[in-house]
Amino acid sequence: KTHTDCMSSRQLLKLPGLIDTHVHVREPGATHKEDYASCTAAALAGGVTMICAMPNTNPAITDKESLTLVKSLAKQNARCDYAIFMGASSDNFSTIPELAQEVAGLKMYLNETFTTLRLNDLNVWSKHLANWPKKAPLCVHAEGQTTAAIILMANLQNRPIHICHVARKEEILIIKAAKEKGLNITCEVCPHHLFLSADDIKTLGVCKSQVRPTLTTLEDQQALWDNLHVIDCFATDHAPHTLEEKTSSNPPPGFPGLETILPLLLNAVNENKLTVEDIINKFYRNPKKIFNLPDQPNTYVELLYGSNKVHFAGANELVVDNRLAVVTSPTPPVIGGRIRTESFS
Amino acid sequence: KTHTDCMSSRQLLKLPGLIDTHVHVREPGATHKEDYASCTAAALAGGVTMICAMPNTNPAITDKESLTLVKSLAKQNARCDYAIFMGASSDNFSTIPELAQEVAGLKMYLNETFTTLRLNDLNVWSKHLANWPKKAPLCVHAEGQTTAAIILMANLQNRPIHICHVARKEEILIIKAAKEKGLNITCEVCPHHLFLSADDIKTLGVCKSQVRPTLTTLEDQQALWDNLHVIDCFATDHAPHTLEEKTSSNPPPGFPGLETILPLLLNAVNENKLTVEDIINKFYRNPKKIFNLPDQPNTYVELLYGSNKVHFAGANELVVDNRLAVVTSPTPPVIGGRIRTESFS
Ligand SMILES: [Zn+2]
Ligand SMILES: [Zn+2]
Ligand SMILES: [Zn+2]
Ligand SMILES: [Zn+2]
Ligand SMILES: [Zn+2]
Ligand SMILES: [Zn+2]
Ligand SMILES: [Zn+2]
Ligand SMILES: [Zn+2]
Repeated sequence: KTHTDCMSSRQLLKLPGLIDTHVHVREPGATHKEDYASCTAAALAGGVTMICAMPNTNPAITDKESLTLVKSLAKQNARCDYAIFMGASSDNFSTIPELAQEVAGLKMYLNETFTTLRLNDLNVWSKHLANWPKKAPLCVHAEGQTTAAIILMANLQNRPIHICHVARKEEILIIKAAKEKGLNITCEVCPHHLFLSADDIKTLGVCKSQVRPTLTTLEDQQALWDNLHVIDCFATDHAPHTLEEKTSSNPPPGFPGLETILPLLLNAVNENKLTVEDIINKFYRNPKKIFNLPDQPNTYVELLYGSNKVHFAGANELVVDNRLAVVTSPTPPVIGGRIRTESFS
Repeated sequence: KTHTDCMSSRQLLKLPGLIDTHVHVREPGATHKEDYASCTAAALAGGVTMICAMPNTNPAITDKESLTLVKSLAKQNARCDYAIFMGASSDNFSTIPELAQEVAGLKMYLNETFTTLRLNDLNVWSKHLANWPKKAPLCVHAEGQTTAAIILMANLQNRPIHICHVARKEEILIIKAAKEKGLNITCEVCPHHLFLSADDIKTLGVCKSQVRPTLTTLEDQQALWDNLHVIDCFATDHAPHTLEEKTSSNPPPGFPGLETILPLLLNAVNENKLTVEDIINKFYRNPKKIFNLPDQPNTYVELLYGSNKVHFAGANELVVDNRLAVVTSPTPPVIGGRIRTESFS
């Protein structure tokens, strides 16, 4: 059994290996942005010892063939544990359920415009909700009223769903009300929605701050903090692009998060906005439970933990392997930390 | 108590005075299209003895002042019974609940683009759902996934809602599933979605066939007929425009329905797609119950009812008082019918 105690002192903190259930690895199809080697290196640098990889690669992971391809790439190149999501398409609802045991879960894109996996037809939603095994995780990109819509649709079929990257007050309040009514839903929040808002776009620049869901208002941000008990997981939505792409005239949405999420969460602990126990619950215990992830024996994160704060800074941006991290730090994150993992093979 | 027997013979049919809960009267603000006098005359010509008037007039009916204005116009000019809807705006959720007893109900426009009353913010939806008295009717324009979203939002607050003009398979199937789960919702279907489809656009012309929800596929249309037991009400969404507007380069959506709905429903009875009992349930009993409407003593519709069929025809369109009815008939609708109503004062 994994050792999940946390020993907090001025200087030393021991955490379980953290689990990020929302990571875009970019391999196959866009390895100039990221690949399994670089992504899992970033994970380990940030204290994350297990990632769940999103299916909107090229080819997208929508059938046995593409899953087999990505599995072999991951096996060859990954430096930490991983699980891979299957993507819901408009016609794979009857063929993918048999693959449920092999993947992290099913991902449905309900209003993401930057993927070929977007599903518009409610009849297709219904078919996926009905066919995907109820015990296998199913998570959704669903913003605004789409959040309410998919919660109803899932509930009508008595199946649990996980809402990705909740960003707005209206979204977290619906999820809160639905949980209070006993509906079987879980959700995650990303560091950029907790620590950045639309007010930061001026500093970061319109292009660099592109992300979906977009950076929201301070009122939205505050609603996330006010409803921390409603949030099951922290997840990065780590989505690297090259500096060149990100500063182009048509910048793609997303930025890396794996290296910076833990320092940012620890900052929040310093500021009494969060406890270390919250980090362990939302960035280890709950993700592990919701996505049925295996134990990682003798895996932990041990780090020096003092007054070094991590800041967002437009000026001295952190560049990792030619990838731009909008979330930046004046000092390297997780100073003096070390990661021990035995489970990875 | 209203006499609701129906006596069906080859020649004579007696129906209760029919109730159309979805009518756009156009007064005040667009009386060149329609006013209370012409609209209620059309109602009586079609066998409808009570209408519920929609609030998207100019001014819109969103407060005590506008309600008082429209009430006095209606009282002056109407030729049959009426009730008036209040419109939900982004800021009237705390002021209108006290008016609930005076109106047909509250109308929320959730994705109608042709009104100033459109509500985008889910927090505003929530406030209206919470504040409007649970016993007062609340109906919504909600298409596609918005149907699912508002059903969840209403259910989270344990309040009944009525879904206007259900048009698509995905919508009727959600409503069906939600009803089966015991959720407190009702819905209406319009004649143009039962009797027309996108296949008719070629004949009718793109401009004249503009309506929201748009004319849908034959599969959608068939789903409505297949789920007739899920449909609580027939309602016209009677929405007249002038011939000139309707044939302009930017034609507004909607067309009249009051004169033609009953003949069309009777045609469907002739074709064994519907029973006279269905008409009485969905066009009198259920609307009366859902919208808490009063009895109309000694009010009935008596009509000769034979083999005269009503057809949609692009060629010889029915023009009533310079209003274009897309739903047309080669013979005058409700041939030889007579309407008796004592309740109107
Ligand atoms: Zn997403
Ligand atoms: Zn996610
Ligand atoms: Zn720029
Ligand atoms: Zn993502
Ligand atoms: Zn409407
Ligand atoms: Zn209606
Ligand atoms: Zn035209
Ligand atoms: Zn309408």
